[in-house]
Amino acid sequence: MISNFTFRLPTKALFGKGQIASIADEIPKTARILLTYGGGSIKKNGIFEQVQSALKDHFYIEFGGIEANPEYETLMKAVTLAREEKLDFILAVGGGSVLDGSKFIAAAVPFNGDPWDIPYKKVPISTALPVGCVMTLPATGSEMNHRAVVSRRATQDKLSLYSEWLRPQFAVLDPTTTYSLPAKQTANGVVDAFVHTLEQYATYPVNGKIQDSFAEGVLSTLLEDGPKLLEHPTDYDARANVMWAATQGLNDILSVGVPGDWSSHAIGHELTAVYGMDHAQTLAIIVPALFTHQLEAKREKLTQMALRVFHYQGDIHRAAEFAIEKIREFFEQMGLKTNFSALGIDDSQFPLVLKKLAEHRPPFIGERKDIDLAAVERILRMVL
Amino acid sequence: MISNFTFRLPTKALFGKGQIASIADEIPKTARILLTYGGGSIKKNGIFEQVQSALKDHFYIEFGGIEANPEYETLMKAVTLAREEKLDFILAVGGGSVLDGSKFIAAAVPFNGDPWDIPYKKVPISTALPVGCVMTLPATGSEMNHRAVVSRRATQDKLSLYSEWLRPQFAVLDPTTTYSLPAKQTANGVVDAFVHTLEQYATYPVNGKIQDSFAEGVLSTLLEDGPKLLEHPTDYDARANVMWAATQGLNDILSVGVPGDWSSHAIGHELTAVYGMDHAQTLAIIVPALFTHQLEAKREKLTQMALRVFHYQGDIHRAAEFAIEKIREFFEQMGLKTNFSALGIDDSQFPLVLKKLAEHRPPFIGERKDIDLAAVERILRMVL
Repeated sequence: MISNFTFRLPTKALFGKGQIASIADEIPKTARILLTYGGGSIKKNGIFEQVQSALKDHFYIEFGGIEANPEYETLMKAVTLAREEKLDFILAVGGGSVLDGSKFIAAAVPFNGDPWDIPYKKVPISTALPVGCVMTLPATGSEMNHRAVVSRRATQDKLSLYSEWLRPQFAVLDPTTTYSLPAKQTANGVVDAFVHTLEQYATYPVNGKIQDSFAEGVLSTLLEDGPKLLEHPTDYDARANVMWAATQGLNDILSVGVPGDWSSHAIGHELTAVYGMDHAQTLAIIVPALFTHQLEAKREKLTQMALRVFHYQGDIHRAAEFAIEKIREFFEQMGLKTNFSALGIDDSQFPLVLKKLAEHRPPFIGERKDIDLAAVERILRMVL
Repeated sequence: MISNFTFRLPTKALFGKGQIASIADEIPKTARILLTYGGGSIKKNGIFEQVQSALKDHFYIEFGGIEANPEYETLMKAVTLAREEKLDFILAVGGGSVLDGSKFIAAAVPFNGDPWDIPYKKVPISTALPVGCVMTLPATGSEMNHRAVVSRRATQDKLSLYSEWLRPQFAVLDPTTTYSLPAKQTANGVVDAFVHTLEQYATYPVNGKIQDSFAEGVLSTLLEDGPKLLEHPTDYDARANVMWAATQGLNDILSVGVPGDWSSHAIGHELTAVYGMDHAQTLAIIVPALFTHQLEAKREKLTQMALRVFHYQGDIHRAAEFAIEKIREFFEQMGLKTNFSALGIDDSQFPLVLKKLAEHRPPFIGERKDIDLAAVERILRMVL
């Protein structure tokens, strides 16, 4: 049975070529804008010029240098700047890390107290600066959702914050802005979106046919068009489909009323915090191992996936295993590794990974709350 | 190629058993509510008591008697009442007709001039009363969208209005409220939602993989669970899936960036206006005929539908025809007729149908704008 749920998507998605120009109408003319971005690639690929042109009648101050897995120390500099300059709107231009960092800034600026308490102690927020975004890397789904993930290297923490205040006002999704992405970032984005979808789909069946079929549509789209991007980075249709798939992958439409797993993300965040691994790379290693470990718990939905997504026609009792193998192959096809040794990582830091996981999460994770620390260690050792 | 688009779903869907109680928190305590409903079935099936209980601390005035294909003369009485009583919020409890009528009232109350100009002359509106709804018949998708259809029997008009002002603030979707629906209304709702999806899907391919796969999910869900409701009207899962499918069927998520047809609806509205036929019954007659007439124009998508929705495994050159036949069979399975003679209707009023269509629509309809009045007449005569 589908659980009760609430669903709304107030973020205005502005999809298609040339849509950056439309931000001029989406941000009040009186706004004092903090314009956030990452490592500066937007200044080389023409995106920044489009944003400048759109904002020619707006006031804005730039804040660049938000890193992948956005860092608390960096973000707090932007918080100070925004407070000093009385900025009241944040425009994030970049990928999920820039946007997630900007969401944290948006929550932190008006927050009374230590802003780290928001992700660390899950202190609820009662307001935030409005955020808009130009999303240049399809992956996190952050553009329409109410989540963000931030990191603090000093304490090896990578933590989430959630609030309806964090949903962007608008999200520009122009597929052509992703043409110049490095192949590795494209691949990471596809895998991240794919695993978001799995976290909401590969659990146990509750007969949510809309949720299931939409998830299968997102998975199939990423399977078909993700690999195309590695060969043809300027294929508009494939870029558009991957971009819209990533948005649907984590805007709640797949998750409403159905169970969620999120243990791959929970474990993966600790691997990123300890080893500095790319987020998607952590997922590519964890998912096939975790699904194999949880095979019986996930057998029904993995069988359904084998039939509907991978068009499996063999022995039904081997369908779930087939799905896991196809998932692993897909990650490898996208150029990611599916075991630790391929990355030169041994088990010496596993105790720290487990310690941090115990610090950040309840004792049991997974959609059935049946994965404890001993199980996580077994899962890690399956893919050494 | 997918066209540029804008997408947002600001309506808060409150889905599941018991959600009527939550309207207490969704409507301001200071609101002066116009509570609209239809023929009074909500007073027999326990829904009205739930609404009364939820509104025990709110002020409201009832306005019942909104009919199927809501009638201008009726709605204007509610407009007068709302103006006299200075009502400032509309809560619609019922199906798509009650909600569509309520959207018209919401637009008409603050409108300067003749409110019939809104649907008839497509005069844009610049405000409307806020609307919330308790949707008791899954069909129109009106609960999350910006459309409404209203009728004026005196002039045999059935016309649409569109505005972002018309999106409901919230929509309660409790599958158990649909348990007591007459089988005919259930069937009409399933067919209506199915055809909405076809109008957005069975056109020509633009490689919108998310849009296509989501549409296929809605179609498959209605095909699987629609017939179940005729046998098992209190099957919660089936009611829930049909309800959520109908919402997705017309909340823009299927239509963004892809072509739309809507000629079955255009023709069907005239059949309802002239003959008083149920909306869904008009669609069940028109769709198979129109698709057969437009076979070459729609062949690619109908072939795709045959393969993915009906799991067709025969000669690919006959797949489109197979899809049309399966669609027709589905309508019959749901208890609807697929030709005029089964309803005792001959061609004597066809000239009036065509005259009204010419009055209301541009000279060419359909996703390729290739259906003229002569084609419409041929389509009508195909299913005499």
